[in-house]
Amino acid sequence: MAGNSILLAAVSVLSACQQNYFALQVGRARLKHKVTPPAVTGSPEFERVFRAQQNCVEFYPIFMITLWMAGWYFNQVFAACLGLVYIYARHLYFWGYSAAAKKRVTGFYLSLGMLALLTVLGALGVANSFLDEYLDLNVAKKLRRHF
Amino acid sequence: MAGNSILLAAVSVLSACQQNYFALQVGRARLKHKVTPPAVTGSPEFERVFRAQQNCVEFYPIFMITLWMAGWYFNQVFAACLGLVYIYARHLYFWGYSAAAKKRVTGFYLSLGMLALLTVLGALGVANSFLDEYLDLNVAKKLRRHF
Amino acid sequence: MAGNSILLAAVSVLSACQQNYFALQVGRARLKHKVTPPAVTGSPEFERVFRAQQNCVEFYPIFMITLWMAGWYFNQVFAACLGLVYIYARHLYFWGYSAAAKKRVTGFYLSLGMLALLTVLGALGVANSFLDEYLDLNVAKKLRRHF
Repeated sequence: MAGNSILLAAVSVLSACQQNYFALQVGRARLKHKVTPPAVTGSPEFERVFRAQQNCVEFYPIFMITLWMAGWYFNQVFAACLGLVYIYARHLYFWGYSAAAKKRVTGFYLSLGMLALLTVLGALGVANSFLDEYLDLNVAKKLRRHF
Repeated sequence: MAGNSILLAAVSVLSACQQNYFALQVGRARLKHKVTPPAVTGSPEFERVFRAQQNCVEFYPIFMITLWMAGWYFNQVFAACLGLVYIYARHLYFWGYSAAAKKRVTGFYLSLGMLALLTVLGALGVANSFLDEYLDLNVAKKLRRHF
Repeated sequence: MAGNSILLAAVSVLSACQQNYFALQVGRARLKHKVTPPAVTGSPEFERVFRAQQNCVEFYPIFMITLWMAGWYFNQVFAACLGLVYIYARHLYFWGYSAAAKKRVTGFYLSLGMLALLTVLGALGVANSFLDEYLDLNVAKKLRRHF
């Protein structure tokens, strides 16, 4: 399980870079629109960048948890690919929201879709391992035998 | 260690679903009380829902870290049970806060208590493993021999 | 990999305690400056404490992910030391920001520097493991042979 986490680790490091990058953009927007800390309001442009980053921050731990659970208990390659699409969706979302509040929608729904998929895969994988360990019932193996 | 994390994984996936659910409720409250993004103020009802979710978001990574540390280094079953109580406490907190600012108290203190317990268990487990590995001193084993 | 994570676990538990402590300080500042939930504005002193904690919260998952990736794939002892410096930097940042907005700078840049180092080490370690596993090319081993 833990031995083959290299793709998950790569996606995690990449997404950590992205989060840092978003935080940097908020700092830049602060300077550009002259919003002095601790204020977080005052300029609609800054507020959009700030809310975009905040939303990414909120979903980041959920993304990490579901990515690793789906990768460990379902399939690493599949989870890593969904993770890459999630990172791309967050990229679309952040720059869309920075431009205009309406433009955030596409990226947002794409990222939510990826998160939902990762959660479902994680839940399936965990449920299968749970049944296997505690009830000695391997559903995935039985399904594979039938097809 | 990593082989028997299935209960922790199950609690993690469950709590990820709960976090998604809270985020969804904020979206719904936005529509209901007509708070257009990027604004986060304007309606006291919306503000309560928003702050409730924000507080859950803030504590989520701390919860995940202490859950896994307590589960890996102390006892998986015990940590998973505390994790379930924590999820229930957050449920109480969120709906209490959404109804009235005063009603958030019960769930909040219950969730803090669980977090404190998980932190203490994690610290004890980590300290024991640390002494065992670096000073060749297994306190837990010695205690068990005496009782 | 997962067997020798004890130092990372110790740093994680310590930083979880720190996060709890910061959250507690926000609660205290609420009482002291009479900012009733769900409000988060009204007193500049409270706002500074609140923003300081929010910033720590934002960076916490990124810190955890890069700490574990750098520790698992690069070097545990080195990553744990950087993690300790990061915790110290956050301590400086929080108390500096609470005192005055300008005093947050030293701690902030120190913490960013640690985060950047952890990210770079994590990326290097992950890249090396990736090349090793998928292209059978161990760069670290080859470098060691030359020196």
